Amino acid sequence: MAQTVGDLGEIALVDRIIAATRGAKGARKGVVNVGPGDDAAVLAAPDGRVVVTTDVLVEGRHFRRDWSSAEDVGVKAVAENLADIAAMGARPTGLVIGLALPPETEVAWVDGFLAGVLAEAGRGGAALAGGDVVRADAIYVSVTAMGDLEDRDAVLRSGARAGDVIAVAGRLGCAAAGLAVLSRGFRSPRALVDAHRRPEPDYAAGVRAAEGGARALMDVSDGLLLDAERMAVASGVAIDIDSGAIPLDEVLASTAAAYNLDPLTWVLGGGDDHALLAAFPKGSALPTGFTAIGTAKKPGEEGPRVTVDGRAPEVVPGFEHFRS
Amino acid sequence: MAQTVGDLGEIALVDRIIAATRGAKGARKGVVNVGPGDDAAVLAAPDGRVVVTTDVLVEGRHFRRDWSSAEDVGVKAVAENLADIAAMGARPTGLVIGLALPPETEVAWVDGFLAGVLAEAGRGGAALAGGDVVRADAIYVSVTAMGDLEDRDAVLRSGARAGDVIAVAGRLGCAAAGLAVLSRGFRSPRALVDAHRRPEPDYAAGVRAAEGGARALMDVSDGLLLDAERMAVASGVAIDIDSGAIPLDEVLASTAAAYNLDPLTWVLGGGDDHALLAAFPKGSALPTGFTAIGTAKKPGEEGPRVTVDGRAPEVVPGFEHFRS
Repeated sequence: MAQTVGDLGEIALVDRIIAATRGAKGARKGVVNVGPGDDAAVLAAPDGRVVVTTDVLVEGRHFRRDWSSAEDVGVKAVAENLADIAAMGARPTGLVIGLALPPETEVAWVDGFLAGVLAEAGRGGAALAGGDVVRADAIYVSVTAMGDLEDRDAVLRSGARAGDVIAVAGRLGCAAAGLAVLSRGFRSPRALVDAHRRPEPDYAAGVRAAEGGARALMDVSDGLLLDAERMAVASGVAIDIDSGAIPLDEVLASTAAAYNLDPLTWVLGGGDDHALLAAFPKGSALPTGFTAIGTAKKPGEEGPRVTVDGRAPEVVPGFEHFRS
Repeated sequence: MAQTVGDLGEIALVDRIIAATRGAKGARKGVVNVGPGDDAAVLAAPDGRVVVTTDVLVEGRHFRRDWSSAEDVGVKAVAENLADIAAMGARPTGLVIGLALPPETEVAWVDGFLAGVLAEAGRGGAALAGGDVVRADAIYVSVTAMGDLEDRDAVLRSGARAGDVIAVAGRLGCAAAGLAVLSRGFRSPRALVDAHRRPEPDYAAGVRAAEGGARALMDVSDGLLLDAERMAVASGVAIDIDSGAIPLDEVLASTAAAYNLDPLTWVLGGGDDHALLAAFPKGSALPTGFTAIGTAKKPGEEGPRVTVDGRAPEVVPGFEHFRS
């Protein structure tokens, strides 16, 4: 019989997590003043501010254990939070994790989860500074990530102005396509399935955007249309997207063709890739990794809204979690 | 029919929470640079460090909706986190909350929860800076709190030295007694039930301890014996508690008598009051609110451990969450 967290007990489990954390690599040097094991952690906040974000992942809703490995879940939980830090133009520094586990969860699952957490935290330069482990009926993962603005202004979603170039960095639609593939009972194309299991946000693109003069910046987590609409509303502009300019993943395109679907369904409506959406002043040289996909305009009579190729989009713009 | 979060939808629910947060009182001025509504929040971290802690509360395990009101749950979730900030000698600044809700949860419950969160955050001087709301099968509340050390050193649990005076600030055992009362189907004594529903940690006592020269400081969340043992192990000392010196709540004492129980069962073994446990150098004038209850000693052959009145304690020292 595989050992479960119920066999191990909470205190031994926490000790195990702390021990694994000690060997972690990739975090910025000197950021952890006090690490796991006390009432709270102490992290460096060098510029006198801390950027902070939190996200919750629920088993059966944000991941399935038969579709994603424990390591995948750890990677994804960290990635979506660090992407939010990057989307402010900040550099990740640290994170804390709340983990609710059924007692029958295998200790090996927790080990794998933690390996994924530490690998992705290290890729983003962040340290795992603390956490909490409790008993529950399903797995709930709650990550809070922190970051450092390095004396720059935070780049909000509200800063786009009429005339700005709208640009993206990172994949669009691949995670949604991977989820669609899994939902139909397939395990390939692997590139799409992996995009669902383990988003790979380019965290440094957030800092490059900030340094490159981005006026607005945000994480695309609920689909390009819905998130672009959020930027439009926050900024008081209209945004027109040129569908032909959106980078189209080749595997996504061929899979959409095989399913007889318009690839734009995934590209415009699919979330979870954690691309960055930015607005740069017209005529800016875009930072490495960014592609121009549209233009911010003065809002018309219908107010701040998103159009695609000048027309109201036909694709379902994202989805709401509580509605069935 | 009462409106549910499923009726309202995620986006409207988040807007509602953000609107309620705007009217909140009590947070320190200037601490929120960027509040809820963007990818992440930006909080002031004036001394170049941030103290951070996280705790998860699960419905049915950490609270029951028939025993605690929505407001009680909000108060408790915030209180246990701000107590951890105080237990580092820091002053709370802000918090973020992850909330997993069944779609059939009434919007009125969320409103009440948020009122409790904002009231307790305000009592501690902290701002609600952001959060995440997701769908789930039970209510999960995940709070991450942040604090400011105001240029002081963090006071760890590892700093106690042989000869130190061990002291506590706050109630001990009342929350456990309240839970015992509720478990037996009673709703009174009200003072004990309220202590379970809404702990009232003295957050400022953490700062007073730090300024008063505390060498070790921690939150008592799993019971005095278990938490004192953690301090003993971290500090490499033995701790002897003088049971007669522990402040004994009168209602707790009379309720224990009515149940034919030794009140020390609750006082030594019961958690959730979030008292502060501290070690001060011998001869120190104890800060306001602290009472000496024991002494740190050189560990004997059995290593760092806790004794009560010089003997091994007979009471169950706390409990582990995963074991049945």
